[in-house]
Amino acid sequence: MAPPAEPRGDAAAPLPVAGFRVAALACGIRYRGRDDLALIEVAEQTAAAAVFTRNRFCAAPVVVAREHLGREAPRYLLINAGNANAGTGEAGIADAEACCAELARLAGVAPHRVLPFSTGVIGERLPCDKITAQLPGLLAALSQDNWLAAARAIMTTDTVEKWLSRRVACGGGEVALTGIAKGAGMICPDMATMLAFVATDLQMDAQTARELLRDACALSFNSITVDGDTSTNDACMLLASGRSGVRWHDLDDAARRACTAALNGLMRDLAKAIVRDAEGATRLIAVDVRGAASAGEARAVAYTVAHSPLVKTACCAGDPNWGRIIAAVGRSPVDDLDVARVVCYLDDHRIFADGAQAAGYDEHRAAKIMSAPEFTIRIELGRGAAAAVIWTSDLTEDYVKINADYRT
Amino acid sequence: MAPPAEPRGDAAAPLPVAGFRVAALACGIRYRGRDDLALIEVAEQTAAAAVFTRNRFCAAPVVVAREHLGREAPRYLLINAGNANAGTGEAGIADAEACCAELARLAGVAPHRVLPFSTGVIGERLPCDKITAQLPGLLAALSQDNWLAAARAIMTTDTVEKWLSRRVACGGGEVALTGIAKGAGMICPDMATMLAFVATDLQMDAQTARELLRDACALSFNSITVDGDTSTNDACMLLASGRSGVRWHDLDDAARRACTAALNGLMRDLAKAIVRDAEGATRLIAVDVRGAASAGEARAVAYTVAHSPLVKTACCAGDPNWGRIIAAVGRSPVDDLDVARVVCYLDDHRIFADGAQAAGYDEHRAAKIMSAPEFTIRIELGRGAAAAVIWTSDLTEDYVKINADYRT
Repeated sequence: MAPPAEPRGDAAAPLPVAGFRVAALACGIRYRGRDDLALIEVAEQTAAAAVFTRNRFCAAPVVVAREHLGREAPRYLLINAGNANAGTGEAGIADAEACCAELARLAGVAPHRVLPFSTGVIGERLPCDKITAQLPGLLAALSQDNWLAAARAIMTTDTVEKWLSRRVACGGGEVALTGIAKGAGMICPDMATMLAFVATDLQMDAQTARELLRDACALSFNSITVDGDTSTNDACMLLASGRSGVRWHDLDDAARRACTAALNGLMRDLAKAIVRDAEGATRLIAVDVRGAASAGEARAVAYTVAHSPLVKTACCAGDPNWGRIIAAVGRSPVDDLDVARVVCYLDDHRIFADGAQAAGYDEHRAAKIMSAPEFTIRIELGRGAAAAVIWTSDLTEDYVKINADYRT
Repeated sequence: MAPPAEPRGDAAAPLPVAGFRVAALACGIRYRGRDDLALIEVAEQTAAAAVFTRNRFCAAPVVVAREHLGREAPRYLLINAGNANAGTGEAGIADAEACCAELARLAGVAPHRVLPFSTGVIGERLPCDKITAQLPGLLAALSQDNWLAAARAIMTTDTVEKWLSRRVACGGGEVALTGIAKGAGMICPDMATMLAFVATDLQMDAQTARELLRDACALSFNSITVDGDTSTNDACMLLASGRSGVRWHDLDDAARRACTAALNGLMRDLAKAIVRDAEGATRLIAVDVRGAASAGEARAVAYTVAHSPLVKTACCAGDPNWGRIIAAVGRSPVDDLDVARVVCYLDDHRIFADGAQAAGYDEHRAAKIMSAPEFTIRIELGRGAAAAVIWTSDLTEDYVKINADYRT
């Protein structure tokens, strides 16, 4: 039973964003009958910020994208699905550079203005010829209205495309944001990667873009986990073209808060969509830790709970097993944790307090909460005022089936 | 397919150990038709050392045992299976103390000379009456020859009892060691706990016992993981009665090494037996990390690999998926890891080097290695000379089935 799809913000189709054109088509790397190559064209003067996986075993496209971005803001993002170009050594880097160089040649820009992104099988060489053969057609197909096609073209084993748009009236104008994403951690056989691209026509400088992206990622893509297996290819970009005429610099605090909230909300909802679509998942679980001494501590506790196989299987079963939750809290890396102060809830139903099952605990009610497609495990630590939410999925037999199938 | 049982050291049945008597019987806490209560009597002058779970949510018996042990060496260890007396708050502590006090009264010792241990369901009150009703019979049944019965009485969802004995000729005499253990991390529904008790007739002081136990645990029980879910009740004790007449103090270096090796080997083999019996497990996997800058670093890398759901499901499948192994290495908490220096082997077959699949990689051979009930994933980091081995099991559908079954 797949969890219900989240409403798509306030738009029925992805909003075009001034300063960006998109294209998608098939180059036949691995899939048949669907697009697997996407291009995002970025207007000059666009501020760009990116966050990449911190996995030291990072894929060739991540190495190249980082290096190119360090030199100058990009004009093109070239994304392929079906091959992650990871575990390919120096040859993989050369392949990524070659695809960028060919696109740059056709588009009339310097090679470092192209950023490569890949997702798919690890350990196989990127079929550059298939990609470069489609570049002229890709460039010719650029349009403001292809975000949905791009969202589909970057899918690997996602069962649904993921996009969201938001509009914010501010600064005497209107700002649009559209984001696309794919993936669910590294949960599918050899299909690495979470990718996310958010475009906006708000104007800002690169420093602001980096700060907004960093904060938004902390609350969104860096607050989800399916199985704790950080991919080799994760990347998230925020691109701000400025073509709306609304400038961050000129916005008052209230307007800035509105734009930030729209960005954070969009990215958070894309992130949750990724977890909902996690292979084998039947539930979206929010682990909401409050009363921590620091944000880092709150996250440490939340991740320990979110990664516990025993908690995740209990969630699959709809089993209100507070013992497993508290055992996970008790082993989290927090100094001097006083379990007697810990209070635990399922949604608003209190299940654990004072070191034992809570007075008023109703197993039937607790089981009902945990049988829903979405619920919250809330943990109050009684140590301060910091908090964090981590979203995760349950651990099911399907997850094991999918990942234990012998690779052909 | 359960992994083959490990040979039981150099004895066909547990060796009696001078200075210790054991008893086991049924008190009917939860199980029918089997023993669930065990008693180990410890001679005066026995040096005792213990290691307990560091889970802050520790069970009442752990709280009481720690406190009693801090006052004086024990005369009795009282162990029950079927109820962990965890998550029971202050009432649980009172229950544990009451059982200790009643045994102490019957045996004629001070209450703090009794250490309680429990394993089983979390969150339910300990049925003290059932336990105390059997204490006279338990005391009357004490004998040097009941180690096997005790090993069976402390089982919860173990499928096989776990015991080992060793003999060491040294210091002009012979030293015997016998150990019993149960559990497999916290992998069974509500059945918390790994417990291990090692008795020897070697004489040593308490400080030596603590040091030997600490070192032995580091190489054994603290180097296994099934699912990373540290129990609330884990405990391991080393008891040295001295009744062999052989004194640690008088042994030369070679003899000390022989005794230490026997102890470490016994505990390591008990620990491996626990992992082999992990619920749902079909494989015992050694994650052998070498060339680390420190032991802590080696362990951090080994645990990251051993806890990775994607690596564990690949092991279940017998799928030589080096990409998943290296992705786990790449996300381990090691500063400045240079993946280009990492070399990875399955047993002695090299599968990854120089940032890509190793030259000479033979998928058929690799798959054959991974289809065996036991194998080693060896990872060379090229950063130093430190090493560590962590043993783990695979992640299977059975694990999920067992732990996602709704608790009745």
